[in-house]
Amino acid sequence: MTYNLKQALEILERTPNTLNAWLTNLSDEWIYTNEGDNTWSVFDVVGHLIHGEKTDWMIRTRIILSDSENKTFESFDRFAQFENSKGKTLQQLLKEFSELRVENLKALKQLEIKESQFGMKATHPELGEVTLKELLATWVTHDLGHIAQITRVMAKLYKDEVGPWEAFIPILNK
Amino acid sequence: MTYNLKQALEILERTPNTLNAWLTNLSDEWIYTNEGDNTWSVFDVVGHLIHGEKTDWMIRTRIILSDSENKTFESFDRFAQFENSKGKTLQQLLKEFSELRVENLKALKQLEIKESQFGMKATHPELGEVTLKELLATWVTHDLGHIAQITRVMAKLYKDEVGPWEAFIPILNK
Repeated sequence: MTYNLKQALEILERTPNTLNAWLTNLSDEWIYTNEGDNTWSVFDVVGHLIHGEKTDWMIRTRIILSDSENKTFESFDRFAQFENSKGKTLQQLLKEFSELRVENLKALKQLEIKESQFGMKATHPELGEVTLKELLATWVTHDLGHIAQITRVMAKLYKDEVGPWEAFIPILNK
Repeated sequence: MTYNLKQALEILERTPNTLNAWLTNLSDEWIYTNEGDNTWSVFDVVGHLIHGEKTDWMIRTRIILSDSENKTFESFDRFAQFENSKGKTLQQLLKEFSELRVENLKALKQLEIKESQFGMKATHPELGEVTLKELLATWVTHDLGHIAQITRVMAKLYKDEVGPWEAFIPILNK
């Protein structure tokens, strides 16, 4: 499947409402338990998605499209959510994520990006040369990857509860 | 996290609306592409969830709670959806799944299962002896596992589009 903006927007637009339908008013144990040391809870993942909306996708899109001579991205802080989410509820985070996503997609549409611009380049601090299309396709797969992470974190909470069915539910051992 | 019916219902109740928010009116390529030979598309996964509602969870719960002398489950048909979903749209499947889930959770609540019944047993044709608690906990992790599968199927459609970011999105190689 070749990247195109219309189909990518279908996923990006649906993520906030999907998370709202799924995570609103869950018990604390579903939300705040992680997979062990140095892993994330559902709450942490939503905070991470917020940080991406604030500092990654549209910031980097604008850098690629700019006339700047030095198009090097800043490193993405994968741990910013631990500070930024402090004192907030998951409900507040979900609302913040929804609002940021709506703003960002509005801004993305206003850029009226054409396929002829998909090959425009910038430098990623760790990955080297990347294109606009790769950045925009990554935004989509990043959403999907973190939805998968949320399912895994929650499913594992019942790993010891399913008995021999563990053999049939691969996510419990990922 | 120890299984309890209240927290399990939180997940089971949210799955239909989560899928509706996520999958309604997506382009055909998101819905009908699978991961290769003998794998499932998003459409196939939703059909499989329907078959579980019809033939697995509540049927087996009732068998365990029954006074029958022979409490052996029938094998679950993991391929029934290929026949049953024929000629239907994903929208029809999502509606069917939602309705079946609502009915099943209503029936589950009416059983007023007590923790003292969690250890009641039946025989699974492949796994041997299983308990009611294990069956009910598996229902939850089965939902979550298939949500993860849907994210993976969709994310992989952009595997060749993300360039070097593939290294940061583990779901693309699962």
